[in-house]
Amino acid sequence: MAIVLGPNRYGKAETRLVRVHRDGDTHRLVDLNVGVALSGDLSATHLTGDNAGVLPTDTMKNTVYAFAKQHGVGEPETFALLLARHFVETQGQVRSARVTVESFAWDRLGPHSFRRRGEHTRTTAVTVTREATQVVSGVTGLVLMNTTASEFHGFVRDRYTTLPETTDRILATAVDAKWRHLGDRADWGTSFEGAVDALTDAFVNTYSMSLQQTLMSMGTMVLTARPELAEIRLALPNKHHYLVDLSVFGLENENEVFLAGDRPYGLIEGTVTRDDVPPAAVEWYL
Amino acid sequence: MAIVLGPNRYGKAETRLVRVHRDGDTHRLVDLNVGVALSGDLSATHLTGDNAGVLPTDTMKNTVYAFAKQHGVGEPETFALLLARHFVETQGQVRSARVTVESFAWDRLGPHSFRRRGEHTRTTAVTVTREATQVVSGVTGLVLMNTTASEFHGFVRDRYTTLPETTDRILATAVDAKWRHLGDRADWGTSFEGAVDALTDAFVNTYSMSLQQTLMSMGTMVLTARPELAEIRLALPNKHHYLVDLSVFGLENENEVFLAGDRPYGLIEGTVTRDDVPPAAVEWYL
Amino acid sequence: MAIVLGPNRYGKAETRLVRVHRDGDTHRLVDLNVGVALSGDLSATHLTGDNAGVLPTDTMKNTVYAFAKQHGVGEPETFALLLARHFVETQGQVRSARVTVESFAWDRLGPHSFRRRGEHTRTTAVTVTREATQVVSGVTGLVLMNTTASEFHGFVRDRYTTLPETTDRILATAVDAKWRHLGDRADWGTSFEGAVDALTDAFVNTYSMSLQQTLMSMGTMVLTARPELAEIRLALPNKHHYLVDLSVFGLENENEVFLAGDRPYGLIEGTVTRDDVPPAAVEWYL
Amino acid sequence: MAIVLGPNRYGKAETRLVRVHRDGDTHRLVDLNVGVALSGDLSATHLTGDNAGVLPTDTMKNTVYAFAKQHGVGEPETFALLLARHFVETQGQVRSARVTVESFAWDRLGPHSFRRRGEHTRTTAVTVTREATQVVSGVTGLVLMNTTASEFHGFVRDRYTTLPETTDRILATAVDAKWRHLGDRADWGTSFEGAVDALTDAFVNTYSMSLQQTLMSMGTMVLTARPELAEIRLALPNKHHYLVDLSVFGLENENEVFLAGDRPYGLIEGTVTRDDVPPAAVEWYL
Repeated sequence: MAIVLGPNRYGKAETRLVRVHRDGDTHRLVDLNVGVALSGDLSATHLTGDNAGVLPTDTMKNTVYAFAKQHGVGEPETFALLLARHFVETQGQVRSARVTVESFAWDRLGPHSFRRRGEHTRTTAVTVTREATQVVSGVTGLVLMNTTASEFHGFVRDRYTTLPETTDRILATAVDAKWRHLGDRADWGTSFEGAVDALTDAFVNTYSMSLQQTLMSMGTMVLTARPELAEIRLALPNKHHYLVDLSVFGLENENEVFLAGDRPYGLIEGTVTRDDVPPAAVEWYL
Repeated sequence: MAIVLGPNRYGKAETRLVRVHRDGDTHRLVDLNVGVALSGDLSATHLTGDNAGVLPTDTMKNTVYAFAKQHGVGEPETFALLLARHFVETQGQVRSARVTVESFAWDRLGPHSFRRRGEHTRTTAVTVTREATQVVSGVTGLVLMNTTASEFHGFVRDRYTTLPETTDRILATAVDAKWRHLGDRADWGTSFEGAVDALTDAFVNTYSMSLQQTLMSMGTMVLTARPELAEIRLALPNKHHYLVDLSVFGLENENEVFLAGDRPYGLIEGTVTRDDVPPAAVEWYL
Repeated sequence: MAIVLGPNRYGKAETRLVRVHRDGDTHRLVDLNVGVALSGDLSATHLTGDNAGVLPTDTMKNTVYAFAKQHGVGEPETFALLLARHFVETQGQVRSARVTVESFAWDRLGPHSFRRRGEHTRTTAVTVTREATQVVSGVTGLVLMNTTASEFHGFVRDRYTTLPETTDRILATAVDAKWRHLGDRADWGTSFEGAVDALTDAFVNTYSMSLQQTLMSMGTMVLTARPELAEIRLALPNKHHYLVDLSVFGLENENEVFLAGDRPYGLIEGTVTRDDVPPAAVEWYL
Repeated sequence: MAIVLGPNRYGKAETRLVRVHRDGDTHRLVDLNVGVALSGDLSATHLTGDNAGVLPTDTMKNTVYAFAKQHGVGEPETFALLLARHFVETQGQVRSARVTVESFAWDRLGPHSFRRRGEHTRTTAVTVTREATQVVSGVTGLVLMNTTASEFHGFVRDRYTTLPETTDRILATAVDAKWRHLGDRADWGTSFEGAVDALTDAFVNTYSMSLQQTLMSMGTMVLTARPELAEIRLALPNKHHYLVDLSVFGLENENEVFLAGDRPYGLIEGTVTRDDVPPAAVEWYL
């Protein structure tokens, strides 16, 4: 028996880049949080502290800023691919590079003025290895609510079940979704907007018997609308809204007054996929 | 010399209320975080544990939910006034009630479907005493950026000053503003929207020599636009965007690539007021 | 009627300083978060953007780091006084300097090795004006719990009161306390440790009929133990632990199983003071 | 081509349990945050909204509280195993149950008085399937620092590398570690304390040429000390402490004054394993 090094990677997390593109007096703004992680032949530094194969994480940060100048920054997927390919192509000891990007949207107020939009964050996770390229896009923090058109009944009852059945409840969630692209070329911006629209439309238009059913509907509508996608994974917290019992005050609560709970919360996680797509090149979720 | 009880208050913080108003098939949604704090003759509970003058904080929570049913919830100022007056009027030992409300906005997606808007939070702090009523409204989390039209130079230089002067920098802030109303009646919704518009317009249209100048401009424009307001207080973090030195890579950075810093940050705080208004009835800021 | 500038201040928030003192092979570590705010004659920058009286906030940050080298860093009160006096003495336009410090404690693991202690944060807020000096110390994040020896009954009951009376409940809080020193010289370290011990002992040893009573006991014990202190203000959230109703499962819950709630929470705020001390030179709380 | 349901699970996250064990006048306190996730035959609810196979997440929460009464709560691994086995054994449609626990430590102040310790959180993730049982324990939030005995040089230099080599730097990290047990029986408390001690000792006593080398040392020492463990995975942020350039003020900074940075940060992730252990039954990390 010996104790040995297993899978490993290293990189720079949370490099905060703001890139201003000046087209005359009208400016365009890109606001990103970039992460880089590299893996490959990194035994020496672990075993003996020999850093001959270690590109400093400080260099990764510098590369993000330098590339932002040299190449500009358009869609986050494009920028992430550029960075990931650079590390694999220029560093022989690197066998895989993973670049993640959070993109924060700003609304234009004037030629050089902006207000940050807070309603959701666009995400990207690109992995480039010597054999494969994989692009995953996603969204987090998209909070949706239906104040009716949601039921929950017919579920298992055991000794510990006290939940009443309901034919009218609030259904609310904060969508955390990631979707895997079939290829490494796409109209990334259109694809993202289309996916978010499909997620939203499905949530709004599904008469829900369970959040699982809504999840399946959301995933199906995204894949139906976006042929460039292979599969989608959703993590949907059930943001419980508890009907407040007002009867003790002589008041009837006809699904009008709710306590918005923080914890605990239900958490529904699921994948929706095409049945004929190649498997993911590398693990891409959670 | 004796050790004695000084100023004190107690209450319930962060009661999370979601109120659905059902006008036929079309629902209206109100999403609030309510705080209540009462003061008055509370010596007994502090000194002997005699609770005969203590309305439980649990009751304050219940009152929030019951009032939401009985009276509905429109503008947060109206709801806060209703609650504050209730406690002062029904509890003889209470001499002052302070009700604070955070309001979270949702965009409509359908007759009963909503998406939470994240760009800012509306705030209200109402104080009702036996002698006076004071209404303060505000906004937090409104993040604004100008990518040019901001200079900073001509400042004091001492032994520890290394900051270069600049005639072109990014100016960004997260507006935290509170404004005091002259009276306790207003078209609260219009007033709020007008104040936020004035804040935003002033930020966008002020060619800035310092964030202090921008603050003064923002406060002045709000008071000019909204005659129902007595004064406004602003806390403006200077969200620094550091120009990245790319010269070492042979690249010129013409105000294009920035590192968005977290800490430390400048913090500019100031009040803008009419010179002929009565002073605040109770301390209302910080 | 005119619109005019009111009270204002500006400064640098959250300068993160780690200072290593090397006494031979044994190192001493100080870990601080420092804030500086200056006020005085600042009209020009607000009204015209003339910065001739503005010491840059970047300089305040530099001063923190330079003073850490020049003077070393011992007790946070001493370091804060040094900084505040520097700004008032060297900048004629500055009439008041406020320096705040959060201190993070580390446990020693070896001559140059440390583990961060997380149980509470020590705070300091020093104000130096041309006329007065005021030192406030405090603690935040000190979470205490008694699993019994707490009752709550005999309170007001109105239409909205449903809370049952109890003679045995959990009492838990996260102590947020600040205390004002009578002078500007003290054995700051001993004073702080003594105050925290007194707060803790009072919480542990008070048989509580209300959190207000516990608050009064805590404040009284601190002032009794520490003659160098003028007054103390406490903000004590009532971290509710709800007894879970297990009777529906045929189980009796004899104060054994609790749901630890997040929101809402009670919030008890109060001041305990000596009756013969001079009033505070400047507002120091909230 | 069809669109189909892929891997999925659901459950209740963040059930906050406080359990008081009363042994006469001396109380013992357990403070947990429990998550439950079940997977199995859940197609119906996703595809048609038929919930006949869905045990409500509300029931999972109830089960946590009821089991805390019925069985008491000792080591978190034991409690998690009890819960996970219950769901697999009593629900035929459930093929896998994963129970995660965060444990918050409290220091005793008296027979029924406690102060929350903040320095780290103990974690547990138990997975029970029809075929296998897997127990993972861990720690998060353990923040360690060496103020010397850390070098970093000999690394790759490319066009974007500006980092100077150093033979004396601060090394600081917030340990996030998880370790997989070989079996499902152990003296869990002793095992946890021993693993944390080994992690800490390795960090303190490793003269470090890279954080990777420190990681390998930490993992090796844990496996050497704890024969009941199969492997360990570590995620170590490099909490950068930047030496402040004081030369411009005529001061020399001999590794004494540092700026503690927040973002970006290096992130070193790696696994250390025995070379003869069976692979994990289910994916257990990230």
